[in-house]
Amino acid sequence: MGETRWSELDLIRMFKDNATVNKRSNLLKGIGDDCAVFENIEGRDWITTTDILVEHIHFDRTWHPPRLLGRKSIAVNFSDIAAMGGVPHYALISIAIPVSIKKKWIEQWYQGVNEMLAAYDCLLIGGDTATSEVLTINVVVIGSVPQKHAVMRSSAGIGENIYVSGPLGSAGAGLEICRNTSLFDSVDRQILSSMRGQHLDPEPEIQLGSLLGSSGMAGAMQDLSDGLATDLAHITDQSEVGAEIDASALPAVDGFEQVCNIIGKSVVMMQISGGEDYRLLFTVKKQTDDSLLSLIETHGLGPVHRIGQIVERPGVRLLQDGIYNDISFQGYQHGGA
Amino acid sequence: MGETRWSELDLIRMFKDNATVNKRSNLLKGIGDDCAVFENIEGRDWITTTDILVEHIHFDRTWHPPRLLGRKSIAVNFSDIAAMGGVPHYALISIAIPVSIKKKWIEQWYQGVNEMLAAYDCLLIGGDTATSEVLTINVVVIGSVPQKHAVMRSSAGIGENIYVSGPLGSAGAGLEICRNTSLFDSVDRQILSSMRGQHLDPEPEIQLGSLLGSSGMAGAMQDLSDGLATDLAHITDQSEVGAEIDASALPAVDGFEQVCNIIGKSVVMMQISGGEDYRLLFTVKKQTDDSLLSLIETHGLGPVHRIGQIVERPGVRLLQDGIYNDISFQGYQHGGA
Repeated sequence: MGETRWSELDLIRMFKDNATVNKRSNLLKGIGDDCAVFENIEGRDWITTTDILVEHIHFDRTWHPPRLLGRKSIAVNFSDIAAMGGVPHYALISIAIPVSIKKKWIEQWYQGVNEMLAAYDCLLIGGDTATSEVLTINVVVIGSVPQKHAVMRSSAGIGENIYVSGPLGSAGAGLEICRNTSLFDSVDRQILSSMRGQHLDPEPEIQLGSLLGSSGMAGAMQDLSDGLATDLAHITDQSEVGAEIDASALPAVDGFEQVCNIIGKSVVMMQISGGEDYRLLFTVKKQTDDSLLSLIETHGLGPVHRIGQIVERPGVRLLQDGIYNDISFQGYQHGGA
Repeated sequence: MGETRWSELDLIRMFKDNATVNKRSNLLKGIGDDCAVFENIEGRDWITTTDILVEHIHFDRTWHPPRLLGRKSIAVNFSDIAAMGGVPHYALISIAIPVSIKKKWIEQWYQGVNEMLAAYDCLLIGGDTATSEVLTINVVVIGSVPQKHAVMRSSAGIGENIYVSGPLGSAGAGLEICRNTSLFDSVDRQILSSMRGQHLDPEPEIQLGSLLGSSGMAGAMQDLSDGLATDLAHITDQSEVGAEIDASALPAVDGFEQVCNIIGKSVVMMQISGGEDYRLLFTVKKQTDDSLLSLIETHGLGPVHRIGQIVERPGVRLLQDGIYNDISFQGYQHGGA
């Protein structure tokens, strides 16, 4: 009665059933052979990314509901697809599972996987399963971008404005709330729930990312996974430029300051170093800001937030209380102290 | 002095250095952005496969030299690429590593990875690293086949002859030799070394597989990873046919019987249920056997061995001592008893 242990055959059957349902014309063979087989898509380039999630390093089953972990297993990869200006097509999932895990847990995890795949029209075309003492999930997503129009980290130009697609630091705060809920009793429950949601169930910004990609107006782009201080430094390093951002322009959710106070970090520190926001960080080609912002609004997306500018001088500098400080690479490390 | 612990940054740097060296025209971006980016290849379809390797389930560091494990991490995926009649192009590697592992171990593992990738002109284009209590390696390989010519498991035809590309059961015997070397003291050392090599360092049959694929003369094909009894049953099930194989036609390496006697299993049982041979199992379209065999010889490949025939009656039957027995799915399970 839900306490049954999982079996590898059950899992393979689940994977296969899904693959059969989701047939599509340019997928020639899904799960069930040595390889999946798919055709070229005219006028598109392929993009691919992978993320490994290890229990206790990237997630904790004590507070992460299996369905939401399933959604997040896929979402973190979709976020990379979005950050190239692309859309996802195919996923391959490997999962190594302790024998003690219940079948019901796996079913709920897989329900979440399927929800997220279906929401963005992505097909499961391959996978592998094994037992392990440590629950480990590896996902590869293959997607596409308009030919020659992948939005790289290396293409930020001096003078371009820098934007983020949503509040910063919420997921990092959400993780702290999950870790030690009772500390946050004084905070409004809806605020807590929203921040926890950012950590447990981030929504990948595929629609915004692919709009930015197809518009041709994005300079450089990447997703915010290690915190603004680190992620923006990747863009400036690879583009051989620098960035200046304004602390007062960094967006935050309601109640953020109260939560940061309890955590014992400043609002700005949480915003620049909180991990796993999975928002998009991008620059906009000069003289196209207005067109792009109205395009985003027309599509019912955004709002996006301008937080600074690309400059010639290397490094990422934060303007706070009239002083610039270099914050390059002062972001989040999984499983770090 | 080789006792240094590994760091995630070292590993990422190793991955990146490789990706930079290996630039190729239809790879637009390797490691270093949110995704890798690559172009369509005219006249080809894409194929992709994944394998997860978990310590103690799929390998054991006590007897598996890191360089050979690196080679095998890639080879097991290349074997699936070969079994579609394809060639590899791109690989994505995720590795979760205990903090206790030495930097030297990782370097040697990665040397093996690189050797195998380079041998078949495959580029590392993505990856992820993490710490974990259990060493876990996940590899995805993306390759290609001539358009509409992937060799599936489902296309075996009644009357077609069944072939294997080399001796059976050697890798399974090699695993037993690694597990308990002292038991095999009476056996010739070269014989032991060859069988151990089949387990520790299998060579993927990319050249033979892609020749079979491009010839158009292969009916169905898959690689032998779970033992002939199981792998052939996949072909017969998916092709909705049956198979009859002849025990006396199954190829074996020199000294195999002596080793099987020590293990305590019959030669035939080891041949049909020994795992991880990574040979190709294929059928040949009617009236094309002679042409295909001479093509294989012309290319300096083979010999291949005819072991039986596809028949109408479902199931996989083994003819031994004048009696047919159904052996469907009586193959090898990783980590099983």
